[in-house]
Amino acid sequence: MFMLAGVMKMAAVGITSPNGELLLNVDVDAKGIPYYSLDYKGHPLVKQSRLGLKADELALTDGFSITGTDTVTVDRSWQPVWGEYSDVRDHFRELAVYLKADNPQRKMTVRFRLFDDGLGFRYELPVQDGPNYLTLMEEMTEFNYAGDHKLFCIPGDYDTDEYLWSETTFSELPEALKSYGRHTEAQRVEGVTIQTPMLLKTGDGVYVNMHEAALDGYPAMLLDVDPASYSMKSHLVPDRLGVSAYLQMPFNTPWRTMIVSDDARDILASQLVLNLNEPCAIEDTSWIKPMKFIGVWWEMFTGNEKTWAYSDEYLAKPGVTDYSQLKPNGRHPANTENVKKYIDFAAKHGIDGVLVEGWNEGWEDWASYRKNRQFLFDKPYPDFDLPSLRDYAKEKGVKLIMHHETAANAADYELQLDRAFQFMKDNNYDAVKTGYVGAIIPRSEHHTSQWMVDHVRHVIERAADYQIMVDSHEAPRPTGLCRTYPNWLAQESARGGEFESFGGNPPSHTCMLPFTRLKGGPMDYTPGLFEPRLSYYGEGKDSQAGTTIARQLALYLTMPSPLQMACDLPENYERFPDAFQFIKDVPVDWADSRYLEAEPNQYITVARLDKNSDDWYVGAITDDNARIAVIDLGFLPKGGTYEATIYEDAPDAHWKENPQAYRIRKVQVKPGQKLQQPLAPGGGAAIRITKKN
Amino acid sequence: MFMLAGVMKMAAVGITSPNGELLLNVDVDAKGIPYYSLDYKGHPLVKQSRLGLKADELALTDGFSITGTDTVTVDRSWQPVWGEYSDVRDHFRELAVYLKADNPQRKMTVRFRLFDDGLGFRYELPVQDGPNYLTLMEEMTEFNYAGDHKLFCIPGDYDTDEYLWSETTFSELPEALKSYGRHTEAQRVEGVTIQTPMLLKTGDGVYVNMHEAALDGYPAMLLDVDPASYSMKSHLVPDRLGVSAYLQMPFNTPWRTMIVSDDARDILASQLVLNLNEPCAIEDTSWIKPMKFIGVWWEMFTGNEKTWAYSDEYLAKPGVTDYSQLKPNGRHPANTENVKKYIDFAAKHGIDGVLVEGWNEGWEDWASYRKNRQFLFDKPYPDFDLPSLRDYAKEKGVKLIMHHETAANAADYELQLDRAFQFMKDNNYDAVKTGYVGAIIPRSEHHTSQWMVDHVRHVIERAADYQIMVDSHEAPRPTGLCRTYPNWLAQESARGGEFESFGGNPPSHTCMLPFTRLKGGPMDYTPGLFEPRLSYYGEGKDSQAGTTIARQLALYLTMPSPLQMACDLPENYERFPDAFQFIKDVPVDWADSRYLEAEPNQYITVARLDKNSDDWYVGAITDDNARIAVIDLGFLPKGGTYEATIYEDAPDAHWKENPQAYRIRKVQVKPGQKLQQPLAPGGGAAIRITKKN
Repeated sequence: MFMLAGVMKMAAVGITSPNGELLLNVDVDAKGIPYYSLDYKGHPLVKQSRLGLKADELALTDGFSITGTDTVTVDRSWQPVWGEYSDVRDHFRELAVYLKADNPQRKMTVRFRLFDDGLGFRYELPVQDGPNYLTLMEEMTEFNYAGDHKLFCIPGDYDTDEYLWSETTFSELPEALKSYGRHTEAQRVEGVTIQTPMLLKTGDGVYVNMHEAALDGYPAMLLDVDPASYSMKSHLVPDRLGVSAYLQMPFNTPWRTMIVSDDARDILASQLVLNLNEPCAIEDTSWIKPMKFIGVWWEMFTGNEKTWAYSDEYLAKPGVTDYSQLKPNGRHPANTENVKKYIDFAAKHGIDGVLVEGWNEGWEDWASYRKNRQFLFDKPYPDFDLPSLRDYAKEKGVKLIMHHETAANAADYELQLDRAFQFMKDNNYDAVKTGYVGAIIPRSEHHTSQWMVDHVRHVIERAADYQIMVDSHEAPRPTGLCRTYPNWLAQESARGGEFESFGGNPPSHTCMLPFTRLKGGPMDYTPGLFEPRLSYYGEGKDSQAGTTIARQLALYLTMPSPLQMACDLPENYERFPDAFQFIKDVPVDWADSRYLEAEPNQYITVARLDKNSDDWYVGAITDDNARIAVIDLGFLPKGGTYEATIYEDAPDAHWKENPQAYRIRKVQVKPGQKLQQPLAPGGGAAIRITKKN
Repeated sequence: MFMLAGVMKMAAVGITSPNGELLLNVDVDAKGIPYYSLDYKGHPLVKQSRLGLKADELALTDGFSITGTDTVTVDRSWQPVWGEYSDVRDHFRELAVYLKADNPQRKMTVRFRLFDDGLGFRYELPVQDGPNYLTLMEEMTEFNYAGDHKLFCIPGDYDTDEYLWSETTFSELPEALKSYGRHTEAQRVEGVTIQTPMLLKTGDGVYVNMHEAALDGYPAMLLDVDPASYSMKSHLVPDRLGVSAYLQMPFNTPWRTMIVSDDARDILASQLVLNLNEPCAIEDTSWIKPMKFIGVWWEMFTGNEKTWAYSDEYLAKPGVTDYSQLKPNGRHPANTENVKKYIDFAAKHGIDGVLVEGWNEGWEDWASYRKNRQFLFDKPYPDFDLPSLRDYAKEKGVKLIMHHETAANAADYELQLDRAFQFMKDNNYDAVKTGYVGAIIPRSEHHTSQWMVDHVRHVIERAADYQIMVDSHEAPRPTGLCRTYPNWLAQESARGGEFESFGGNPPSHTCMLPFTRLKGGPMDYTPGLFEPRLSYYGEGKDSQAGTTIARQLALYLTMPSPLQMACDLPENYERFPDAFQFIKDVPVDWADSRYLEAEPNQYITVARLDKNSDDWYVGAITDDNARIAVIDLGFLPKGGTYEATIYEDAPDAHWKENPQAYRIRKVQVKPGQKLQQPLAPGGGAAIRITKKN
């Protein structure tokens, strides 16, 4: 520290990551604008990039001096309730930069954590001498890259993230974004804007996953991209009145995160986002149980005219209409008899749960955004005999999973939330799939604006109070909050398996999600599709899934989640009982994970150790190119002999031409051996490895 | 009916009121625009005035033909759970006009009910062949008057009705509206707009109260006024995105009401608005009990620096801040010891309830619109020992009344509603005063937009489920829904007694409210102010109430409500125990009511018969002119002799100069006798009449 013209001014400050490969520098310029830069292995990765927040009441943008800094090195570990690892190392150097400005007085801290695999930083706003409520209009954070790097991204949108991935560059991004359509009830952002998580690859082969961690009390972040200068700037999702956030001091923003490595496998293995979240807030977690489930849902997607609605008659509204007087449409799978068949199937095959969609009043006249009351969450349809199903499921040792589709009327859901959760507990439900399809009510909000972030957080907290596990669909994309609330088992928040019946997901799609979407937390992708020839949802034309059966099995490894669906119809599993055996066997919670091969949009090979046995599992997938996966069995403990049961594409398998051709073979394998595993175009392989002695 | 050029067209249709004094005509013009007109005693009152609704999806504005009509005469009566009359006659001629338009096909019914004392009509939208969800942008309803009538009104505002009344004319209205300021967090409407209920007086001395009945699922109505053409047009309160309402067919709008008479007393006596509401929806109403109450609240208004907040320290947020660690400010009246004094006082004087404001977490940093979480409704402050107070009140036979101030965060209230009501029942509370001070969250809404109308209706319905009575403050103005939900005892929804400490209410104010605001339902005006010399709330300067003590007693008659507060501090009642006796005696529920004298903005004299005894009570008030009220005791049953206890202004009393000068005298009175009762400027008189033999 030295004094300059009466003003206390710090020199620029810098830290390196524990392994020395990342170098962070922070300074303020002549106008008092704070900025940072990041070097990786001696090369500039992020050039001088602005920091700051702009509020109506207080400009936390410039006029700043650095009044002090703190640095600390932390090396600790924690044990998640579930996940890819039973033990997670949290090792970083932290730099807190204290900023102050006068006329008017303003204070802000920027806290950086530099890990071996990346950077996280956030703004911390202490109680001010001036206004302590801020109407936040803009976040100034920049990420100025040093070249025209490759970008793997989806369009910026205030309401949805269910897009396919573009592989493009800064300069070609505007053209790439033009290829996307617009969702009816979602607001895609005009201009050159993308959303996080996204992945970037430099010409030097450095990968950067950009996202955020611990999104709480703040809107989600999009990125405005300048294709000419290779620059990105934070673009907070506003409410429909144009305000980004209402903040009360003291407040900490979410962490802005960059996972950095020149080895793509490190991106997949990184626990940086989880490390930047708060520890588990739930004292007794014994009731949180990873699980597999089947569901009464795919019948409605497979082109046979089945419906979530009980009747085709026009309705007044739930709670007013007397449903017992409605004429049933006879195409409603959520009926007692049919659900019992699913319970029987789950019981027979050791599947933990059965999700039932379309069980409750309100589906007849779907009118998202149009009705202040859409669904009732404690009123089963007349043909859904809940007490009898509750007892039947209990007798069979199967858990029914609740479905709360809100039609995006989050306000109506809040109003019913306590009753809905109490109804679940009264009827032996432990888990709920929530849905927010459509445009949000309150009508001031978007799916990812601050109010909705608060809403979903509240739902998770209330669910924890009731010991309920949650699987959120159409909620703000995850940012690692599942560490703090491990009852938040999974989210959708990306284009999921259901799109196989909306025209199909290309094989490359699931080669991108682990590099991007999954860095925030597990996805309820709904793998397990055994019948890839589908009818386009609602349109009758063909829809071809971008997969082979063997690939679907591999997804249970490449898309790790403590909540895994077997998405297909029971009858399709009964056609392929030997392949279904893998779904029955595969765990959903892991002691260790090893990423063996990885390239975004192309291929992933991963090995995982079951948390509850010594069995290892391997999953390998490719894009629509055939590939030989090289599986280095170096992870197997030395000295044993092992049997690998390999579920693989048949030699003539092909995602489009011959998706159901698979083989199952058993081979003896040894630690250190390298398996050459062929994968068909759009295919995959799934392997279970058990110790023989 | 006759056929014209292939189009079925009805001739104009008309009906008269049962007594023949009102004549309604309805027709469509050459463009198929429907209109109506209304004559009173042979003179045009409302000239040809347009009808219709404009939605994005369907223009229900023109192209219509009348395809049929239905008329019926109804004469029935009903018995309210509480009110001004034990029996209410509902006598009207009804005309349903069926309208149809082609290209595209549209259907609409306008249903008129013509009473001897006025008109109600509403739009009924049946299920359409076309779109059945409407984004309603505008209601076309006009009220075209025949002259430059006198208007008694307050400014149009989307968020508040807490204004003083203007007495003006159509042509002078623009100037009158300029005199009003703007509330910080309320949106006053630009332009020449007023709100309902309002009163109009023609040059011929015909009074018209304009309002609406049964506001449900629809926004409140303002009136855009054309000062040149003496025309009014409905102006629906939009949400902040500009939409009036989201409607699902079938849908009936609220009734547009005009109470019409050339005798001002008929306006006060009219039950037209209640008659146009649905019958009681609550089966068992035995738990609904009219009552009087005192409250820990006026201490915060009287300039002694007392606060709703427990502490002056800056907070994070309720549920996060550990209140037991906060430093108390020592100026918090909602503490155990003080509340016990109020309970003692209520028990001693037979007052049913004690309201306590400031009992719960969240008041420290009031930040309406800024915080998604403001108050907790199940967390008492550390110095409010709820279990002990609950038991103490029960032992003393007094009911604690709950306070739910939401800071206008209706979304947060909905989220907590079930817990809040359960908490009340668990702690022996039967009634709640709700508050919505500030700007509404959800931020898309106004206090009187459709969503908020739905919100408050939901609160009332849920309260009924828990057998809880409600007193709503800052809610959409009442429209007679208390008939359907008699647990909705009262609302504020006007400038109430609290304004005596915000600069004062002129005496004329309470000579207007019964002609306007009260036509929708009872008001929690909070009469009973015995110390009119106040300190201006929050500003330390003087505030002089516009009243004498005797007038305050009269308000219990002229402002009838099943929920009446004795607003002042117990110590002020102890200074005037003989005057307080009237408050102890006066009932809050009536078998019969007789309006004896009335002129808007000037005076009201009313007599009422106790529902539970043979006692009559009379209240008389005047504006700031002294007056002799003539009380015709014709209502007393013949043959008896009666004693009247008269609480009157002392001869030298004056609202400003000598407000606390009153006399009490007993006189023998006879049926048919006419009492000449002097009233001081800003004064009043209250009389109890008991039968002596």
